Amino acid sequence: MSPIVSQTLSTAQTFVEVAATAAFALSGVIEAARKRLDAVGVTVVACLAAFGGGTLRDILLDRRPFFWVAHTWYVWAVLALCVGAMLTLRSKHFKVTERAMLWPDALGLGLFAASGAQIAMDAQMPSLIAVVMGVVTAVFGGVLRDVVCNEIPSAFRDHRPYAVCAFAGGWAVVGVDLLGASPTVAVMTGALVATLSRLLAIRFDWRLPAWRSE
Amino acid sequence: MSPIVSQTLSTAQTFVEVAATAAFALSGVIEAARKRLDAVGVTVVACLAAFGGGTLRDILLDRRPFFWVAHTWYVWAVLALCVGAMLTLRSKHFKVTERAMLWPDALGLGLFAASGAQIAMDAQMPSLIAVVMGVVTAVFGGVLRDVVCNEIPSAFRDHRPYAVCAFAGGWAVVGVDLLGASPTVAVMTGALVATLSRLLAIRFDWRLPAWRSE
Amino acid sequence: MSPIVSQTLSTAQTFVEVAATAAFALSGVIEAARKRLDAVGVTVVACLAAFGGGTLRDILLDRRPFFWVAHTWYVWAVLALCVGAMLTLRSKHFKVTERAMLWPDALGLGLFAASGAQIAMDAQMPSLIAVVMGVVTAVFGGVLRDVVCNEIPSAFRDHRPYAVCAFAGGWAVVGVDLLGASPTVAVMTGALVATLSRLLAIRFDWRLPAWRSE
Repeated sequence: MSPIVSQTLSTAQTFVEVAATAAFALSGVIEAARKRLDAVGVTVVACLAAFGGGTLRDILLDRRPFFWVAHTWYVWAVLALCVGAMLTLRSKHFKVTERAMLWPDALGLGLFAASGAQIAMDAQMPSLIAVVMGVVTAVFGGVLRDVVCNEIPSAFRDHRPYAVCAFAGGWAVVGVDLLGASPTVAVMTGALVATLSRLLAIRFDWRLPAWRSE
Repeated sequence: MSPIVSQTLSTAQTFVEVAATAAFALSGVIEAARKRLDAVGVTVVACLAAFGGGTLRDILLDRRPFFWVAHTWYVWAVLALCVGAMLTLRSKHFKVTERAMLWPDALGLGLFAASGAQIAMDAQMPSLIAVVMGVVTAVFGGVLRDVVCNEIPSAFRDHRPYAVCAFAGGWAVVGVDLLGASPTVAVMTGALVATLSRLLAIRFDWRLPAWRSE
Repeated sequence: MSPIVSQTLSTAQTFVEVAATAAFALSGVIEAARKRLDAVGVTVVACLAAFGGGTLRDILLDRRPFFWVAHTWYVWAVLALCVGAMLTLRSKHFKVTERAMLWPDALGLGLFAASGAQIAMDAQMPSLIAVVMGVVTAVFGGVLRDVVCNEIPSAFRDHRPYAVCAFAGGWAVVGVDLLGASPTVAVMTGALVATLSRLLAIRFDWRLPAWRSE
């Protein structure tokens, strides 16, 4: 790839990363506010939602430093977002904020699932484990957010595909890697697959197969 | 030990491991189904129940790779079990399945507690810590399963000995190790102590001392 | 510092550490008893409350051995405390015990926040991350205790400053470190700031800004 293209891609990735982290953090702010947590609770839950998935992946893969340690300004940005949200966001804004977050959240789902899988591939993990690491990266921030707020994780009972999209994106990364393409292409493909399938799932209201309990 | 005996033992251990992992995973499937989770939730909770304890032990001991990373087919097997269970298991089967699982679960309790303690002894941990690691291995899969399902862990409020049996089995491992016997003998003794005490506890309905609240 | 002074300080620190660990463990015992957990649950929740924060910090910083592995007698002490509490503590004692624990708990908050931040500074973490590690050390034992007991962590919804005091103490450590003072002075200053602000917050009933939900 020419330096200009790769520079553009890297800028685009940073942009998506920031938007997605903001979306994940805001999901934590809103859930914490709904549960009437105090300022500390709002901040911690926002940080768990934003950084929890990548951190858990890095603990499982034994990687250091975490990306929020290497790029401390992410933590500052989430702190600022929390202060801003507490000053301006009211409960009547929750629904509209959540709707506005669907797009950046889907972008984040794709980017985090694909980059998580690629990082695991770089660490010589088997294919299935790489895919699992992508899912962990994309989904477990929300899981930690919900567990701390004393809810069953919405990713586990929503019946709308979310983790499944991350799973598909992870396999796309693995497939493109096996074809011998560069990691950048693999991550872009995987992110596209996960994000697109998520947007389609929302658009057409796809449902996971329900458990037939009788 | 002769090669044939140790081969037989190792086959027996693999057999117990598979049966126990299936029992742990099924406990996750059933709890997830009771909570009306979707297919993703069922799968994740089954994986947490099956692999969570050993993974937490390895994180605490800083060991890699995790056993489900080194033996990926365990993950495939749990995924297959989840699909199979979702196709065939109905809520009327839950009770009979749980009763059928008491034996493999007790075997898993013993094997995981004993091998967890032995792994910690091999990592030069003090005796008490080795025993704690055995308990973590055997019990914390179920703890993670219950926490994610928004329940107080049954191991903490059941009043029937479970972790206590793992604790006893762990001390048996430590004792046999200190007598200078081989790790294989230590693990077998510890597993026997934990499994037997668990089966006796079920058979005779032993109870943990209750907290006298008044 | 003269050897006698540093010896005295180190004795004082050990004394505070023991009192604080006991206070944290007792908070776990009381919460577990309120939830009617069995003897195993009481013990595990007490251990989570006492050791959870420091352990999570060490996992995040990739430090081993944990302090309860290096000093096994801490685990024995918490086990003994649990047995003692189960024999003597009744529900009518909970309130008075909690009131008696306010002081050692505030001391522990200060000591754990300050030493956690200093440990992270020693590990070359950026300032903000060191402060976060101090907060994790002081607060996340209680968070784990509450999550396992199926409660929203009280540190997140209490509206009384707790984590905020740890945050302030952490910044004091960082500031004193940057001034070039010795780690001992930094930890003492940070602990003083966190403990004092906590005691003042209790004394004058300070509240965190509430979320205006309308």
